Amino acid sequence: LKTTTSVAASKDFVEDTLWLNGAVEEGDNARLKQCISAMRELALLHGDPKGIANYKVHICSNNNFPTAAGLASSASGYACLAYALGCLFGLVDEGKEDRIAELSRVARVGSGSACRSLYGGFVEWEMGKLEDGLDSIAIQVAKETHWPDLHILVLVASSHKKATSSTAGMQRTVATSPLLQHRAQVIVPERMLQMKKAIVDKDFQNFALLTMQDSNQFHSVCLDTYPPIFYLNDTSRSVIQLVTQFNEKSKTGIRAAYTFDAGPNAVLYVQKENLVELLEGILHFFPSAPNQSASEYFSDPMSVLDKNKPTPDSLPEWYSSFGLTPNPGALKYILHTVPGSGPQILSSDHSLLNANGTPKA
Amino acid sequence: LKTTTSVAASKDFVEDTLWLNGAVEEGDNARLKQCISAMRELALLHGDPKGIANYKVHICSNNNFPTAAGLASSASGYACLAYALGCLFGLVDEGKEDRIAELSRVARVGSGSACRSLYGGFVEWEMGKLEDGLDSIAIQVAKETHWPDLHILVLVASSHKKATSSTAGMQRTVATSPLLQHRAQVIVPERMLQMKKAIVDKDFQNFALLTMQDSNQFHSVCLDTYPPIFYLNDTSRSVIQLVTQFNEKSKTGIRAAYTFDAGPNAVLYVQKENLVELLEGILHFFPSAPNQSASEYFSDPMSVLDKNKPTPDSLPEWYSSFGLTPNPGALKYILHTVPGSGPQILSSDHSLLNANGTPKA
Repeated sequence: LKTTTSVAASKDFVEDTLWLNGAVEEGDNARLKQCISAMRELALLHGDPKGIANYKVHICSNNNFPTAAGLASSASGYACLAYALGCLFGLVDEGKEDRIAELSRVARVGSGSACRSLYGGFVEWEMGKLEDGLDSIAIQVAKETHWPDLHILVLVASSHKKATSSTAGMQRTVATSPLLQHRAQVIVPERMLQMKKAIVDKDFQNFALLTMQDSNQFHSVCLDTYPPIFYLNDTSRSVIQLVTQFNEKSKTGIRAAYTFDAGPNAVLYVQKENLVELLEGILHFFPSAPNQSASEYFSDPMSVLDKNKPTPDSLPEWYSSFGLTPNPGALKYILHTVPGSGPQILSSDHSLLNANGTPKA
Repeated sequence: LKTTTSVAASKDFVEDTLWLNGAVEEGDNARLKQCISAMRELALLHGDPKGIANYKVHICSNNNFPTAAGLASSASGYACLAYALGCLFGLVDEGKEDRIAELSRVARVGSGSACRSLYGGFVEWEMGKLEDGLDSIAIQVAKETHWPDLHILVLVASSHKKATSSTAGMQRTVATSPLLQHRAQVIVPERMLQMKKAIVDKDFQNFALLTMQDSNQFHSVCLDTYPPIFYLNDTSRSVIQLVTQFNEKSKTGIRAAYTFDAGPNAVLYVQKENLVELLEGILHFFPSAPNQSASEYFSDPMSVLDKNKPTPDSLPEWYSSFGLTPNPGALKYILHTVPGSGPQILSSDHSLLNANGTPKA
């Protein structure tokens, strides 16, 4: 899952402009403006190395996954934007690790969780204690190469935009949920310690249990909000039921975990040895819509299925006891991935902008 | 919503037998046995006035609403059973109010919330402090005649049996939800005081707000359970959205409230003056299935619609801004009712048992 962003600055540009997924962004995007402003301030603070921080910028950004569907598109997008502008303004150099921390703070202006995406692998977002939030920063817990057996399946239940944006939703939860304070002050700090240990130890049992429990509790405080916020739908609940039963039938403890961000799409974690068996169950209970090709439905860049060829015939008999009915088309598509790296600079032939600063496509 | 129960005792009966909704209950029903046992003990404690407490009993019980669908059928059933056996064993006399409290304790053996249903109107179930639960009792807050303008609509989303029984579900929540303790110890006691005041004052605004917030929070801790418990489905969520928007468009504050027990069915509270307008919206967005007659779909013993005749034409224009799509058949049926009385003794021609103690039907 990635965002690709190209940026250009010129004294000839009339205004800051963003093309997102091929369409120009109209109207007032306050968070975008604040984020660009914060980048200009940061460049000026460091002496404006390229002398272009006050030029207007053109930004062209594409996600290879649905925007505003609960797949953290704004986290990915703002992290990528901060890094791209950082490169443009001459702020990113080899060996200047603390610059990444500064870019992370700027990305957070656009979207809180974007602060994490400046790093690869497993990243913690520390709550911090200061009123101004300056100590609320992201710290890498482990690199993306730390746990190579950990695989990820993204089950996209819907590419519709969310009814409630995650930022607006969280603000309403903070204002009205009596359970949120208890969660934030008592439960999350303890779970963060346990989770970091589980990651460092590559302890899948605890990693998976904490992941599921904390996903449940996040959606729990959304529901405790008034009026309540629902990100999970009936498809999400069927996925939870599938994973729960997959684990209950397991002879070796928990073998899969689900987590849901601010949307109905599931992110499943599974170790490599159990990936194909889990995928068989998912493809059995959530087959593609009748008019959809297998390659449209399941994005398989690592060729898991080519090597293993799960078919309905190879389905373990115990799946029949799951009490679930196959539901064709309930999922839009499935992505298979692994923990990824932080921002990468691509060669200029990947640029989304022409030499004159307008989108290529 | 009511349970009708007939009981008979005879030295000729071979075993305690229950016919529930026309079918004999097979197998071991531990809660039923415990409840009958507790009634025998209570009769013996009071000198067994009729001398029949040790006879086997035949019980025939019908609900006029779906069983085990989250409509508190076990609360209604066990309260009715305790009262019926109390009458049979000679324990219920005019003027002996404390006997009702004793029957309430016995009903609680069958189903916790049954303790409330020995009283009419608005009833509190006190948590109590004793380890043995003997001080966890029901107390009437106000009689059923206290708030005549308060009406109730029950929206039955599904008559399927629940995936998780409410008793088993609550036990799993107690064992695994980190948020439940905070809810039980900090939030509920405060809300109970506010709710009793709102009922006594007939303060619909606060009554409705507390009702919705506490329904949300109950389902919130169900979701915080591991594995999570879901009683709400996509239809429940649409009902919540409808009521939320009905209130947001209101010029006079909150005019309707939803609450969901351990199932997807909604119970809506609305004052008489707003009943027809709310009902118009419900019938617009949740029309009956195409093959269902209006009288099958909406049970209207008080003839609300006959007098007011809401039709699609009379629908307020602002309903069109609700962002909901009419969903025919999403609800099975709708019941209209008001707060009811406690147990009533019917004349013998209503008996469900023949003179020989077998079911009439």
